[in-house]
Amino acid sequence: MLEDIDSKLSKIRKADETSGYLTSLHHLLMWDLWTCLPPEGIDYRERLAGFIAGEQYKNCCSKEIDEIVNSLEDVDVIDDIDKAIVRELKRNRELNVRVPYEKKMKLDEACTKAQVAWKEAYEKSDFEIFRPFLEQIVNLNKEVADYIGYEGSRLNALIYRLEPGLNVRMIEKLFTSLKVGISDLLDKIEKSQVCIDTTLIKKNYDKQHLYRLSKYIVEKVGYSIEAGGYGESLHPFTSFIGPRDVRFTINYNNFESSVFSALHEAGHAIYSQNCDDRLKYTGLWGGIMGFIHESQGRFFENILGRNKEFWLYFYPYVQKELEEFKSMEFDEFYKAINLVEPSFIRTDADELTYNIHAIIRFEIEKDLFDDKIKIDDLPEIWNTKYKEYLGIEPTSYREGILQDMHWAMGLFGYFQSYALGNIYGGQFFHRMKEDKPNILQYAQNGDFEILISWLTENIYKYSKIYTPSELIIKSTGEELTSKYLLEYFNQKYSEIYCF
Amino acid sequence: MLEDIDSKLSKIRKADETSGYLTSLHHLLMWDLWTCLPPEGIDYRERLAGFIAGEQYKNCCSKEIDEIVNSLEDVDVIDDIDKAIVRELKRNRELNVRVPYEKKMKLDEACTKAQVAWKEAYEKSDFEIFRPFLEQIVNLNKEVADYIGYEGSRLNALIYRLEPGLNVRMIEKLFTSLKVGISDLLDKIEKSQVCIDTTLIKKNYDKQHLYRLSKYIVEKVGYSIEAGGYGESLHPFTSFIGPRDVRFTINYNNFESSVFSALHEAGHAIYSQNCDDRLKYTGLWGGIMGFIHESQGRFFENILGRNKEFWLYFYPYVQKELEEFKSMEFDEFYKAINLVEPSFIRTDADELTYNIHAIIRFEIEKDLFDDKIKIDDLPEIWNTKYKEYLGIEPTSYREGILQDMHWAMGLFGYFQSYALGNIYGGQFFHRMKEDKPNILQYAQNGDFEILISWLTENIYKYSKIYTPSELIIKSTGEELTSKYLLEYFNQKYSEIYCF
Repeated sequence: MLEDIDSKLSKIRKADETSGYLTSLHHLLMWDLWTCLPPEGIDYRERLAGFIAGEQYKNCCSKEIDEIVNSLEDVDVIDDIDKAIVRELKRNRELNVRVPYEKKMKLDEACTKAQVAWKEAYEKSDFEIFRPFLEQIVNLNKEVADYIGYEGSRLNALIYRLEPGLNVRMIEKLFTSLKVGISDLLDKIEKSQVCIDTTLIKKNYDKQHLYRLSKYIVEKVGYSIEAGGYGESLHPFTSFIGPRDVRFTINYNNFESSVFSALHEAGHAIYSQNCDDRLKYTGLWGGIMGFIHESQGRFFENILGRNKEFWLYFYPYVQKELEEFKSMEFDEFYKAINLVEPSFIRTDADELTYNIHAIIRFEIEKDLFDDKIKIDDLPEIWNTKYKEYLGIEPTSYREGILQDMHWAMGLFGYFQSYALGNIYGGQFFHRMKEDKPNILQYAQNGDFEILISWLTENIYKYSKIYTPSELIIKSTGEELTSKYLLEYFNQKYSEIYCF
Repeated sequence: MLEDIDSKLSKIRKADETSGYLTSLHHLLMWDLWTCLPPEGIDYRERLAGFIAGEQYKNCCSKEIDEIVNSLEDVDVIDDIDKAIVRELKRNRELNVRVPYEKKMKLDEACTKAQVAWKEAYEKSDFEIFRPFLEQIVNLNKEVADYIGYEGSRLNALIYRLEPGLNVRMIEKLFTSLKVGISDLLDKIEKSQVCIDTTLIKKNYDKQHLYRLSKYIVEKVGYSIEAGGYGESLHPFTSFIGPRDVRFTINYNNFESSVFSALHEAGHAIYSQNCDDRLKYTGLWGGIMGFIHESQGRFFENILGRNKEFWLYFYPYVQKELEEFKSMEFDEFYKAINLVEPSFIRTDADELTYNIHAIIRFEIEKDLFDDKIKIDDLPEIWNTKYKEYLGIEPTSYREGILQDMHWAMGLFGYFQSYALGNIYGGQFFHRMKEDKPNILQYAQNGDFEILISWLTENIYKYSKIYTPSELIIKSTGEELTSKYLLEYFNQKYSEIYCF
């Protein structure tokens, strides 16, 4: 029996290792696509990407792997790494096999066309151009959801792709308290008399300065350039090419966008660079994609990256690198990077209202997949929710329902991750401060070692070994709650806005 | 029967397509390795490269593919593309299957160690450090050759890896006449009174200027940047990532090195960029590796790239980009880039003596694999040959036997390609001028379209459809001969050196 298990384990470990290599190749193709690929190379690149996807399918979905995975699922003698391999292979297979191949191809094709239509619709700010394509994608995604299967809301099937332990009801519970808390805070902030000037942080500066500054900050914080590298792209992203080869791109739109997007990507990268060495030739390195990764991006961008102690250390470097900041007092700068102001565009939103953008999309998706709203009604519902939650109403589709490309890409059941990432980040931060009360004082002195080692010991080293719901218990001792994120918001904004 | 053939063809076409994708991924990994990879990423990168190699092995060496390939080999009804697919799959399989896997692994390991030893030996200019490793690699390669099988010289087995239609006897015949011709020319050049000053072309200039100049020249000549890109590396190389994605690196050591290595790499790249569209999703695009590719690199670097008409067009751009050249007359420049002077280092050699460097290595390899010389005697034989053919004797191992890394990499049976490439280039050039007598006048006016279209119609479009020996007949109507290269040398150097 044990010998039998050993031989089975060696087979699934091999499949998992292969899965890791194929994922790395996928990331390398993407990195190269956005940083090097010549225009005429696109067509063949799509073939290469398709080839890798096909190999991944073959690798995870063979009958042999399926049988082994099923037979090992309830075996207790195997260790946590092997258990995670079984779990991941099983989910991969389920998602790939339950949905017929032709249906997936049809959805892919529909998405390719929808992205072209979305681009035109976005440019002309005309929802009508996008509407029929969106309708087709939503309908195909409903079919996909039905193939995957679900209990309760149909959106659960799509959420399952990201995290099996999560469902609409749990998310709604978390979001309900978060919405109330943010709404209270927004009321108080609106009444505040504090004046904040963001001119300097919204300005553009010479690329070389922004590059040097971003590089200095992220490497000081803990990003290892010996195991990484920088590229440039309009929409920054991180590429997980190897356990010691995690690169990201920076944009140079303006001070705030450069520095904070670099911090965000560095969060993803630092997470990946610090996985347990035992995972390096498995498919388990690189961290849990989706909201746990998002939690680290958002942690470095906001909770750490817009923190007072953090900038007490780094602001002198800003003033050294960028002449203009010499006339700006530290307090003014700190307030500028923490301005709260309801706005239309999710990606430009401040740390607080950002959550509302994610929640609105989640609520709309849920009702859409439960057949409670029609495509034609979407723009109106969008605007109503913005009015209700943020007190502002988009005057164009472009700053409303057309702003994000996710739906054109067929990405439903994802938007909640952005707010969930913040909730996770808040809870991690709370626990970190309980364990290491002086952690921010160290940061103020430019010492980030304790912080990185807390994150590594409690989150990073495990990578994909545990699911998000197991991980939160393991690292914080409690189930996920919005309470800590709200506490953090309250403390921070009451100080800045004096209430 | 025909239905049977169709089903077989569709299987081997699939295997060939997959082989093409895997080769592209290999090239992408290499490109990224030399242009982006962070230091700590090496270990995992080797795994990824090993994974691709393993997949390639599985793809080409399955029993099913083998049976199909054998059954199709003598079938006449299939077209030239399918015939080439059959031929390439068969050779791939032969080379992979005849040599036991363990032997290949052992050789790989020995090479890894030998490269480290070679580096140290090279730095200390001490052959003794490298000797035992070289001995092991030579012995392992002899075993590999015996597994592959051969008639006549044992080196034939290794040459077969590059080109099945070639053997030591044919090469010796070509080289014998080439040696005599070059030797005559060297005598005449030595007696010449012509003074040539290379100071300016050996000087280093600002990188931006060299980059702009190289870029301008190669793109004007025919390299499509829409289907390519530039990187930087000490040893320039071309990466064949996709049919419309062929990139190369430039070095910035000095004027001559930058510009001529860019032209060399552009030759490889232009060849690949102009393959027949029907080949783009096959493993047959990208041109014939080895000496046909080398012939195009050397053609653009030398035959075209050191040609008078070529520079009559481009020299004004050099003078515009680099102030220093304003004081250098065109004739002085033209002579400087065509100076002939026996020297020790192959990669720095002039167009004429370069061939002798390749021939010396080929002769030594032949005797080594025929057990006519011992490892211990190599340095002495090396020096004797340099004395005999070039009239100079290396005073250190570093400028002698240790200069190239090929042997440490296990690359035997390759060096002849560098001289064969020139011979092919000379013959192509001769035929091109017969077909299009005014081709150089067009070049002088900056019009390279006729040149590129001759190369495309007669060489490039076929890519790997024909073998080198079939191709030379198809494109020039004759078997390979050194005659045309020597005629070209005679005409060129008699004018420059006034004899």
